[in-house]
Amino acid sequence: MQISVKELSTLLNGHVVGDENALLNTVAKIEEGKPGALSFLANPKYEPHIYTTQSTAVLVNKSFEPSAAVTTTLIKVDDAYASFTFLLEQFAGITKGRAGIHSTAVVETNARVDASAFIGAQSYIGNEAIIGPDCQIHPQVYIGPGAKLGKNVTLYPGVKIYHLCEIGDNTIIHSGTVIGSDGFGFAPLEDGTYKKIPQIGNVIIEADVEIGSNCSIDRATMGSTIIRRGVKLDNLVQIAHNVEIGEHTVMASQSGVAGSTKIGKHCVIGGQVGFAGHITIADGSQFGAQSGIGTSIKEPKGKWFGSPAFEVKSAIRSAAVFKRLPDMEKKLVELERLLTNSKNKEASETNNN
Amino acid sequence: MQISVKELSTLLNGHVVGDENALLNTVAKIEEGKPGALSFLANPKYEPHIYTTQSTAVLVNKSFEPSAAVTTTLIKVDDAYASFTFLLEQFAGITKGRAGIHSTAVVETNARVDASAFIGAQSYIGNEAIIGPDCQIHPQVYIGPGAKLGKNVTLYPGVKIYHLCEIGDNTIIHSGTVIGSDGFGFAPLEDGTYKKIPQIGNVIIEADVEIGSNCSIDRATMGSTIIRRGVKLDNLVQIAHNVEIGEHTVMASQSGVAGSTKIGKHCVIGGQVGFAGHITIADGSQFGAQSGIGTSIKEPKGKWFGSPAFEVKSAIRSAAVFKRLPDMEKKLVELERLLTNSKNKEASETNNN
Amino acid sequence: MQISVKELSTLLNGHVVGDENALLNTVAKIEEGKPGALSFLANPKYEPHIYTTQSTAVLVNKSFEPSAAVTTTLIKVDDAYASFTFLLEQFAGITKGRAGIHSTAVVETNARVDASAFIGAQSYIGNEAIIGPDCQIHPQVYIGPGAKLGKNVTLYPGVKIYHLCEIGDNTIIHSGTVIGSDGFGFAPLEDGTYKKIPQIGNVIIEADVEIGSNCSIDRATMGSTIIRRGVKLDNLVQIAHNVEIGEHTVMASQSGVAGSTKIGKHCVIGGQVGFAGHITIADGSQFGAQSGIGTSIKEPKGKWFGSPAFEVKSAIRSAAVFKRLPDMEKKLVELERLLTNSKNKEASETNNN
Repeated sequence: MQISVKELSTLLNGHVVGDENALLNTVAKIEEGKPGALSFLANPKYEPHIYTTQSTAVLVNKSFEPSAAVTTTLIKVDDAYASFTFLLEQFAGITKGRAGIHSTAVVETNARVDASAFIGAQSYIGNEAIIGPDCQIHPQVYIGPGAKLGKNVTLYPGVKIYHLCEIGDNTIIHSGTVIGSDGFGFAPLEDGTYKKIPQIGNVIIEADVEIGSNCSIDRATMGSTIIRRGVKLDNLVQIAHNVEIGEHTVMASQSGVAGSTKIGKHCVIGGQVGFAGHITIADGSQFGAQSGIGTSIKEPKGKWFGSPAFEVKSAIRSAAVFKRLPDMEKKLVELERLLTNSKNKEASETNNN
Repeated sequence: MQISVKELSTLLNGHVVGDENALLNTVAKIEEGKPGALSFLANPKYEPHIYTTQSTAVLVNKSFEPSAAVTTTLIKVDDAYASFTFLLEQFAGITKGRAGIHSTAVVETNARVDASAFIGAQSYIGNEAIIGPDCQIHPQVYIGPGAKLGKNVTLYPGVKIYHLCEIGDNTIIHSGTVIGSDGFGFAPLEDGTYKKIPQIGNVIIEADVEIGSNCSIDRATMGSTIIRRGVKLDNLVQIAHNVEIGEHTVMASQSGVAGSTKIGKHCVIGGQVGFAGHITIADGSQFGAQSGIGTSIKEPKGKWFGSPAFEVKSAIRSAAVFKRLPDMEKKLVELERLLTNSKNKEASETNNN
Repeated sequence: MQISVKELSTLLNGHVVGDENALLNTVAKIEEGKPGALSFLANPKYEPHIYTTQSTAVLVNKSFEPSAAVTTTLIKVDDAYASFTFLLEQFAGITKGRAGIHSTAVVETNARVDASAFIGAQSYIGNEAIIGPDCQIHPQVYIGPGAKLGKNVTLYPGVKIYHLCEIGDNTIIHSGTVIGSDGFGFAPLEDGTYKKIPQIGNVIIEADVEIGSNCSIDRATMGSTIIRRGVKLDNLVQIAHNVEIGEHTVMASQSGVAGSTKIGKHCVIGGQVGFAGHITIADGSQFGAQSGIGTSIKEPKGKWFGSPAFEVKSAIRSAAVFKRLPDMEKKLVELERLLTNSKNKEASETNNN
């Protein structure tokens, strides 16, 4: 596709400084600009790139005034970042909006698929499953018996939704993610073996959630494992049985939450973080990457780091001193020696007296 | 489904205290009780909930005597927890016991599928593969050429079993798990590139094993990667080539074992733990979450924590002191100053003398 | 299959010491030898096994002279390890080289599949996708619209390649791995919710790469996430959007790289390592298992360990002292007490004077 600077500016209600007939056919970061590309400048720290970028045009905030010569064409808009995001959505949107059931999909007799939904090739929809309006089910997806999808749910290729799990409106789940596998529940027997505890609950994922690829979210032993509205999970995340993740909490890749733990709303969790089971985490808590949290956190909006985690500033200070530990130990031994010598000397002087 | 308290009590050989005509249609944890639900009380620390639970009936041990008024109906049985587990198994069992091959499954000519086994939609059974009696192969499973499944194996949707791997009786494997991918073996060449070392072994999983979702278990370079009888692996676990996991060892989510390491029997391994390659871990060892184990452990039944891991009580003490490191460093500097001053003073007094 | 020692020796241009009519039907490690097996001896530390191995024959370097009696037959070759690897490749190669499209595969009308390529059962090839010569696409693979595969690419069962991603010649990807899922990009809004940032870039994987099972490699927000030539990734690895991994870098299982980070060439990265976003790692850097890297590394060929990571030898020393922290703290308190006492005594003596 190709669009002129003028057309684009009109679409965004902007103002052109430069060549309004230049043609655009792609997008690029301002620092990786190339002819034919549109870039944007929102963060002032990227300003130096606007004087050297190869991009044909750059979206800027209307308040922006260059402090040197620019060769690229500027499109001034109210909010350069918001305009750029809007455009990206238009680009990305081109593959949406299909409807119908592919001939190679298997839809069991009692499943209900809304007429506006799309079921891709080689997908499987189990008995009594419900697929709401505008859902986009990509190829090779499995939706188990009795599972329910709300409106406009997107499941990428190969997603597996076990029986009886529920997915809320507008939720997006990426390839390889498994929703509703059995919780890790085994009762130890006296002979040292383990007996499986049946996992008869389900998983409830509320609306506006996005879950990355290859995540595992286990069904509850009883009741539900719950992912609240607006939660965003990155790839390879583990959510154990009976966990609850509060609204609008975000969790980076390879983090894990052990069984029955409740994480509050609006938390921000770095990568490779681990939470022990049966604990509660206050709203607005933040955790640095690779932190390990073994006990409940009651104070909201705290920031934590380390394994075991403690208050982030203290944790960073301790980590800094950790590097000097061998020196500290040497110094300590030396002080001990000095003090012992001095006491011995004192003792000897006392004796001499 | 619906069942009366009386019917349930008869089934469990129990004794009713309360309304034996009350009707039950679901199960719930005692602290999350609701009308129509059956709960259980086994652990005394949950006793307070029995006086407030909304559940219609609660299974209790026959020795249980309430210390206050209860409004729920009690069903007294020999072992409340065992009875509840038995019931859960009955509930969960409703989807089992199918047989036959779905019309969309692909079964290669020389594969052998027992007549009592079930092969779900869109599954693939390779040449020379053997599927034993009562196996439940869910949709979209791949079983490679020459792979062998014993009796009553359950493979959830999307499991991938590479060629020549073997799965023992009663083993359960959850969605997304891959058995038999190539081990990570590359020989470094002089020019800084790597040459693949062919991985021609297989994976042997013995009987009564359960493996969670999205795990990776690599085939051996030669010989077999072995998961012994009764092992339980949680989700997103990594088992490298030529590893052996001993009988009845349990391993929580996101843990990993590097190549050729042998883990003993009856070990208990927390989440996000890592084991280096080519080491041996004694039977009955236990490891706290996020531990890192770099060397062999010879003493059985030890408890370990930390990265690098050491004896758990010492590790917890060190972690506690770690928080005070900045204070320790300040104190050390102060002591050094005092001692230097005092020595200087002494020296100066000596000089004055 | 069965082959005589003589035939094998001829194939490898070797020289037999022992029974050249002995028959071989499998391979085994020298320390796990058994009748009928071929083993090899390359590393001198395994030499003791050659005097006790049950293997029928052992490949050795031609310079090898036994220092005691051997009962196995020796096949002397120029390079025992290289010869063994060559044989393994012959063994492993028996399943390669198929061509054609399975009748249950779905290939969209505008896809282009080379006549020498193989498309397995139940695989999906999207619109405008290109599959190059000699590609081996196993069953249940998904290749999205506009994706491009070079020559001789091997995708194991269940691999998912999202739209527009590119895979280079000779690259191998194992089951469950997802290439091109959306990057984890969300703009925080003032009300505490998040707005998805469209991810319209792609993933480019160059030639001669191998990627293990259940990895997640996200597409770029704009531009490309790039895995350079010769890179080897183990299982369950996370690569975030806009990351670049330099040529011939190897990365062990369960490691992760956050967004926009650039990792150099020829790096060696242990298991469960994490890299923060927006940093740059110099060529030839090495990282111990479970390390956490929060800042850029400019000096090439450094070795790093710990979380946060620092120079490996220092890090190992600090970790050793860490075990003695409780003792250090006690000693420090004791020194403080001694010094205070001694000062008090001094003060009191001074007063007495």
